Amino acid sequence: MWLSTIAVLVYASLSHAHTCKLSSDLVKEIRSYQGTVNQIINATTKGLFKGKTYDELAYFVDKFGARQSGSQALEDSIEYLLDLMQSTGYDLENVHGENVTIPHWIRGTQTCEMLSPRRTNIPVLTLGGSVSTSANGVEAEAIVVKDFDDLDRVFEKVKGKIVVYNYEYVNYFANVEYRSNGPSKAAKYGAIATLIRSVTPFSLNTLHTGLTEYEDSIPKIAAASITIEDARMLQRIQDRGDKIVLKLNIQTQNLDPVTSRNVVAEIKGSRDPEKVVLVSGHIDSWDVGVGALDDGGGAFISWYALRVLKALGLKPKRTLRSVLWTAEEEGLIGVQAYDKAHKDELDKHIFVMESDEGVFTPLGLEYVAGHEGECILKEVLKLLAPINATQTKLVDSAGSDITIWKNILPTATLLNRNENYFWYHHTEADTMDVFDPAALDRATALWASVAYVLADLNKDFPRQVPK
Amino acid sequence: MWLSTIAVLVYASLSHAHTCKLSSDLVKEIRSYQGTVNQIINATTKGLFKGKTYDELAYFVDKFGARQSGSQALEDSIEYLLDLMQSTGYDLENVHGENVTIPHWIRGTQTCEMLSPRRTNIPVLTLGGSVSTSANGVEAEAIVVKDFDDLDRVFEKVKGKIVVYNYEYVNYFANVEYRSNGPSKAAKYGAIATLIRSVTPFSLNTLHTGLTEYEDSIPKIAAASITIEDARMLQRIQDRGDKIVLKLNIQTQNLDPVTSRNVVAEIKGSRDPEKVVLVSGHIDSWDVGVGALDDGGGAFISWYALRVLKALGLKPKRTLRSVLWTAEEEGLIGVQAYDKAHKDELDKHIFVMESDEGVFTPLGLEYVAGHEGECILKEVLKLLAPINATQTKLVDSAGSDITIWKNILPTATLLNRNENYFWYHHTEADTMDVFDPAALDRATALWASVAYVLADLNKDFPRQVPK
Repeated sequence: MWLSTIAVLVYASLSHAHTCKLSSDLVKEIRSYQGTVNQIINATTKGLFKGKTYDELAYFVDKFGARQSGSQALEDSIEYLLDLMQSTGYDLENVHGENVTIPHWIRGTQTCEMLSPRRTNIPVLTLGGSVSTSANGVEAEAIVVKDFDDLDRVFEKVKGKIVVYNYEYVNYFANVEYRSNGPSKAAKYGAIATLIRSVTPFSLNTLHTGLTEYEDSIPKIAAASITIEDARMLQRIQDRGDKIVLKLNIQTQNLDPVTSRNVVAEIKGSRDPEKVVLVSGHIDSWDVGVGALDDGGGAFISWYALRVLKALGLKPKRTLRSVLWTAEEEGLIGVQAYDKAHKDELDKHIFVMESDEGVFTPLGLEYVAGHEGECILKEVLKLLAPINATQTKLVDSAGSDITIWKNILPTATLLNRNENYFWYHHTEADTMDVFDPAALDRATALWASVAYVLADLNKDFPRQVPK
Repeated sequence: MWLSTIAVLVYASLSHAHTCKLSSDLVKEIRSYQGTVNQIINATTKGLFKGKTYDELAYFVDKFGARQSGSQALEDSIEYLLDLMQSTGYDLENVHGENVTIPHWIRGTQTCEMLSPRRTNIPVLTLGGSVSTSANGVEAEAIVVKDFDDLDRVFEKVKGKIVVYNYEYVNYFANVEYRSNGPSKAAKYGAIATLIRSVTPFSLNTLHTGLTEYEDSIPKIAAASITIEDARMLQRIQDRGDKIVLKLNIQTQNLDPVTSRNVVAEIKGSRDPEKVVLVSGHIDSWDVGVGALDDGGGAFISWYALRVLKALGLKPKRTLRSVLWTAEEEGLIGVQAYDKAHKDELDKHIFVMESDEGVFTPLGLEYVAGHEGECILKEVLKLLAPINATQTKLVDSAGSDITIWKNILPTATLLNRNENYFWYHHTEADTMDVFDPAALDRATALWASVAYVLADLNKDFPRQVPK
């Protein structure tokens, strides 16, 4: 998951404050899908597909590892999926890649030694997109600040120093601004590099990377994360009045952009094939860990849902399209390319789903939709009672890539028991071990069921969204 | 905490199955300490010493970092504490170091690359005491086994391979045998190196080291830990029938032993100075993390308890002796030297305490004692009601160093809310962040109170222990 700004992404618990008055015909029609949904649930949780989402994903991440934007591993993994999706037994339709030009930033040397008051290694993880320090690194005094206000207070002391951000963790969305904007805010006062406390509520000396964003008008300075533990240690040392001297060496490379692909597969609609219900996740990951959580799980339930429906012979009236976005971590590059390429077709996109906030125990859906849409979703989610995933939550932005359509199209993301998501996010611990195979099965069932029902209802899902 | 064998250290919940019949005089005498204990509790949790155990320990670990056996940091930290303990305001008595010859093993190069089926780095952490691979490392096929029985079953396939232990976690005491005995058991069948799943119930791709023990009659092979995540990945790859080839390079050094010191400080007894109540922890640590948990916390409450008692002017009838053991991690080296040097004096050791199982929220004491001793401890612990730390638990072995006396002397260890202890144990995450300052204060209070009361009662604590 990539996040640029807070405002967009702080979840609000909203309510349209109305009671649902769907026509009894529509309610009846939705309820008529219970048998189909049960069939999907049985296939994924007990039958042929039990454990398969996990197994297919495990094979995938074991085979390719991390899939960073620009890497050969990403392109190989895309090629593999394109082949797999159209192979015998899978037989998805219209499987193809759609070209996207994406960045090729490479993490290189990343070392930090504390020289004073004690010589010790401080593990660092360069932030995505960071520039380099000078060729042999920089040796400088560090200054620890607790927040941006604190930085503003001590601005006269910042010049020539390495600014260390040691904010108190509130939540990811509140704190990610230090990763995004911290370097430029420090550089404005003359800092020569920045170290940013990893954005997480829990750490076992764990480093978290993620994209940083430079302001154009301000000199770009190297930026890396440090652990909570080291941020707090540096704070203690400074609070005692001791001088901190660091030697930081960050060497990164921005290579030429490469051509990557959004991965597309479909089950063509039987009545209105031009109308699309889209399910998605992103296929790229950071280069630490293997991108199992972010976003292997989301990507896999989003094409495996189609695999299950296809195997069950379920062909909805509208087209079900699975898209695995490329280069999400670099700033939603893949979805923006899709948005441009499919501009003329977007008004035929009935409903858009993305899972990029974990695939832990599924609980239901978070969605952006108007009044009637909300009522339809509440009714559809009731069908998921057999797996206790009936919850619905109106939010002001759902998904990560698909937030670009939040004012345009009804969208939804998987509501799941993801309270520990940020323990693993953008770390070496983003591995298969975050997953419970049974939870993945239920998520596939939910994803397939909702997408199928919305693609198959007689009436189009209402397009209105809150503005 | 170092642990050699399971049997010694599996905690049994025992019971003497009797009701306490202490003399009413003794009960009355114990209860008369409530005011003194309250004074200690107030001083540590509200008064002059509030937060001080944490602050002193934080300064100590920030200043010296890890304190591995043989390192200059360990000796510097010992020197620092010896100075501090006798400095003005601290004024502990008979402060001195007692020489101990300790090992000087050094972790060097530790790299592992998986060459097949995919090239990727596998982070490894060499086990303490491991020998090296050949000078440029070894390149070999890996074989993953689930337990020792599994190893025995596939013994014909082991020769020339790297054995990977991927046991299922049961508990630390059940699984640590893979770290202790895994290398020799694999070498017996001709393995050339071993990788052992880190001994922990929870991981964020976290590596755990610890001492390994070679059998004399079997070739010694290099041994390192890998993460749970990688152990399970290797298992999956093998289960799919794919060949795993690793290049493992472990270079360690066994330098000449060095002279270290057990750190001793006392409050001399007013009536029977030759009789000793001993409180202890170990001052050395592994070289990963900073040894805050293992065993900075235990060591600090064990001398800070005396600091508080001294400041409060509390001088017990018997001598209170604080000992910080050196080189516990290398196999209880410091305590064994003390045992030898103080042989003639051991029958004057009334009660021996060590904290080396975490200093989280204190709950009471785990102890090894006879019937009457048990009753006395239950009564004494009632005095800790103001901090809700009144629990007592009879075990068959208490402490780590002091287990050498478990059949000889009454012993006790801190009972605390340490259910996550093994998340941090022997890892880079053993830092100050494991601690809550208020919990440390209460632990100091408990430690000081119990030691003081047992050292001050009219009657010696009964020497009988279960055999």
